[in-house]
Amino acid sequence: MKINYPLSVEKWEVFEVTLPGRRDGNPYTDVEIRGTFVHKNEVKTVDGFYDGDGVYKVRFMPSFEGTYTFTVAGNFSDETAGGAFEAVPPSAGNHGPVRVAHTYYFAYEDGTPYHCVGTTCYVWHLQPQKLQEETLETLKNSAFNKIRFCVFPKHYDYNFNEPVSYPFEGTPCDSSILTKDNFQEYNGRAPGNEWDFTRFNPEHFRLMEKRIADLKELGIEADLIVMHPYDRWGFSMMDAASDDRYWRYVIARFAAYRNVWWSLANEYDLLPQKSLADWERYAAIICEKDPYNHLRSIHNCKPFYDYSRPWITHCSIQRQDLYKSAELVGEWRERYKKPVVLDEIAYEGNIQHGWGNISGQEMVRRFWEAFCRGGFAGHGETYMHPQGILWWSHGGTLHGTSPERLRFLNKIMCETPGPGMEPADGWWDVVAARAAGAGHKQPADYYIFYFSFMRPSFREFYFDDTTEYQVEVIDTWEMTIEERGICKGKFTVQLPGKEYMAIRLRKVTG
Amino acid sequence: MKINYPLSVEKWEVFEVTLPGRRDGNPYTDVEIRGTFVHKNEVKTVDGFYDGDGVYKVRFMPSFEGTYTFTVAGNFSDETAGGAFEAVPPSAGNHGPVRVAHTYYFAYEDGTPYHCVGTTCYVWHLQPQKLQEETLETLKNSAFNKIRFCVFPKHYDYNFNEPVSYPFEGTPCDSSILTKDNFQEYNGRAPGNEWDFTRFNPEHFRLMEKRIADLKELGIEADLIVMHPYDRWGFSMMDAASDDRYWRYVIARFAAYRNVWWSLANEYDLLPQKSLADWERYAAIICEKDPYNHLRSIHNCKPFYDYSRPWITHCSIQRQDLYKSAELVGEWRERYKKPVVLDEIAYEGNIQHGWGNISGQEMVRRFWEAFCRGGFAGHGETYMHPQGILWWSHGGTLHGTSPERLRFLNKIMCETPGPGMEPADGWWDVVAARAAGAGHKQPADYYIFYFSFMRPSFREFYFDDTTEYQVEVIDTWEMTIEERGICKGKFTVQLPGKEYMAIRLRKVTG
Repeated sequence: MKINYPLSVEKWEVFEVTLPGRRDGNPYTDVEIRGTFVHKNEVKTVDGFYDGDGVYKVRFMPSFEGTYTFTVAGNFSDETAGGAFEAVPPSAGNHGPVRVAHTYYFAYEDGTPYHCVGTTCYVWHLQPQKLQEETLETLKNSAFNKIRFCVFPKHYDYNFNEPVSYPFEGTPCDSSILTKDNFQEYNGRAPGNEWDFTRFNPEHFRLMEKRIADLKELGIEADLIVMHPYDRWGFSMMDAASDDRYWRYVIARFAAYRNVWWSLANEYDLLPQKSLADWERYAAIICEKDPYNHLRSIHNCKPFYDYSRPWITHCSIQRQDLYKSAELVGEWRERYKKPVVLDEIAYEGNIQHGWGNISGQEMVRRFWEAFCRGGFAGHGETYMHPQGILWWSHGGTLHGTSPERLRFLNKIMCETPGPGMEPADGWWDVVAARAAGAGHKQPADYYIFYFSFMRPSFREFYFDDTTEYQVEVIDTWEMTIEERGICKGKFTVQLPGKEYMAIRLRKVTG
Repeated sequence: MKINYPLSVEKWEVFEVTLPGRRDGNPYTDVEIRGTFVHKNEVKTVDGFYDGDGVYKVRFMPSFEGTYTFTVAGNFSDETAGGAFEAVPPSAGNHGPVRVAHTYYFAYEDGTPYHCVGTTCYVWHLQPQKLQEETLETLKNSAFNKIRFCVFPKHYDYNFNEPVSYPFEGTPCDSSILTKDNFQEYNGRAPGNEWDFTRFNPEHFRLMEKRIADLKELGIEADLIVMHPYDRWGFSMMDAASDDRYWRYVIARFAAYRNVWWSLANEYDLLPQKSLADWERYAAIICEKDPYNHLRSIHNCKPFYDYSRPWITHCSIQRQDLYKSAELVGEWRERYKKPVVLDEIAYEGNIQHGWGNISGQEMVRRFWEAFCRGGFAGHGETYMHPQGILWWSHGGTLHGTSPERLRFLNKIMCETPGPGMEPADGWWDVVAARAAGAGHKQPADYYIFYFSFMRPSFREFYFDDTTEYQVEVIDTWEMTIEERGICKGKFTVQLPGKEYMAIRLRKVTG
């Protein structure tokens, strides 16, 4: 049998086998294809998938260097197939998938800390080609290393246009009648939709894969939102068999990309047609079918999902309170004992919706609050735009003032020794953080004191009589770091009496 | 017996009888003096007090117009005394004492709504004379209509100087040794204090009365903090008999001033030497001895006092959370069913302490949040000053940006029909308020929508097809009100996409 595959691939890259197979019947429902991959350190069996036009594919991500052999089996063909390839060392920039590290933090599989700076562009990959390229260019020049986006197209305010592709064979309802005043009447399954949920549209998924791969090259994690409620096509209200088939297809196609994270849903609680049992069933499918254990979570509108569920690797939180969001990271760390990712803390912008009109200052403040408390905030942007292109859904370019400051924050994050910052006890009126993973040594080797909206004109410190600290004053908004020399004993740091300042203390060693 | 008293006095003004009496023994402990005042509508007996130098006084505030007769009795003299006076109609500006009105609000006794805009200058009246006059001049030109200050002098950071007087006979400890680094070592009763807690210093109280009267003339309520923990003299740790004698003396001297409010303590929970039973005993003394039912509350550092206690007329809250304060007014209204006064929500300033360095913007935002939720915020200011004069403790002049905006807010408050604003249901992303006391009519006649730190560039409204509203856009920071004409049905209000905006809708009638 003629099969097509590369002879070598980097560890943590996508190894792909392409094979011809049956076209009769419905290949999406009637046909099975599995690959088994054998290395001295691992044996993994993964599902392949039908890619249309009589073509089947099996994808695999090797987790080790060295020789892999594989066999492909199933009723996709009367023949079986197999071969071997070499997993070679990863190139620079390939650190493997992101894992949970030190309970509350993340690291790539090679041990490099991953300081999450996420953004959201729900359906950027379903916009016109030119806009997609613009989004990638914007991302390339940003600090964002995670982006949340949806597998399904989106129906919502500012989202009435047709996506470039649909996930199933069929025809969509007429979108030309939609306006911001009537779109909610078409929530759910609008008249005129004709879909065959048993037949995927491979082109839709190929386009997504291209973008997942593009993000991978940019070092950006693809936090895939597999289900969501913003729907006029009925994709949010398929029956259980269709849902499960969809989940298996998504996993078979995307799981071999090291930068994939699974977000079961955006605002799961706005999908009344799905029960908790449904979400748990999808989770079970992921746990069974994703052999790489990609990160898994689920995102709320109002009530949190129970993040203590064992399959959930990290919290993916939308803030519940209009005023406090990142300030609550400590409570959630305590409750769930998992990384706290605040995937929605409101968007920098000026639209009507209350979740979409905070200032750049407030966005950056929330990021610093989260960082110092040992959590991770997520960015988004919703500025009114003459062509209705809002970063939050469509991507494009950024217009806000926060992204530049988040790049600066990311620089500070990357200078953190260890996995991240954690709360330092004993202060009530400043967000006091010390480098995590260094035990409870008093005083600590590395502190950041973030003053948020408070504006002291000085701050006094006393740790002990002997420990020397390199003192820096950080203006998180102006993005400056001012050296203030070495201090010990009782010392005073002068501050400019303005908002968004921080003090960093680094112990002088040797 | 020769007694001295005026023949007429305004309703709600201080009627004062001065009489000679015993000087032997200790007039503060051994002597009783009581006045009984009789009018066709009321009979009240009040304690008089010794004012030093063989002089006794009895004060009374008439609550009705017309003829009062009175008698003075007690062992202060071998003779009794009495007389009559006329209570004449109040002059403009004399609206009587402030009372709770409509459960959550305040009104003067004549029914005029009282929209509380408070500030704090803990010991302004114990500073040099010139500074006191400066404070009064500042208050005169401000919107503040309540000021919190202490009967006892204050020992704290920025408060090491000697007060102009002390409440007891005796000598204070040496304050020249105090610095911001050692002052806490002298908390409580410092060495060198020699006080006779059985002998008051009438001059101290006369000076206070002068200032209470000055405030009364300016239409400002004197929220008297009778006990507090910032002490190096031992006034916070007297025995129960001394405490009770002090309370009775304070009430006998001050209760007849219509603008007095009783604050049992500032940060009652920082007085470990006082038990709940002590506070309840002081409260019982006030309830027994103050015949005018002045407003009564007690202020916290961390845990709230139980504001549901029947003697407490209103909540006097220090914010417990660094981030949320005025935003919680609704919860506290619900819990206590009393007016919610946020007497400390942090101070505009730039000192080190986390309670003393918020911006003018944040101060004003908290006031608007409180107002729209049907509560009342309190101002304070702590800017570093070359002579160490901080409004918060010493008074003087104001340096911040909030007072001007609070005057603007007060103007809006005074335009409110009814007792104040209350939350309007059905909005989640804007602070929606309607005029209180108008029932639950839908839609309401009078709305304010406050956007806080959110920055929508427009807002859509729909109440019904027929109700017409006069639309105004309020810039709470720039202090402008922009007319936007009359709207009905579905309408859109354009906004500038900046923080601190509000929309006011007033129903067009007739």
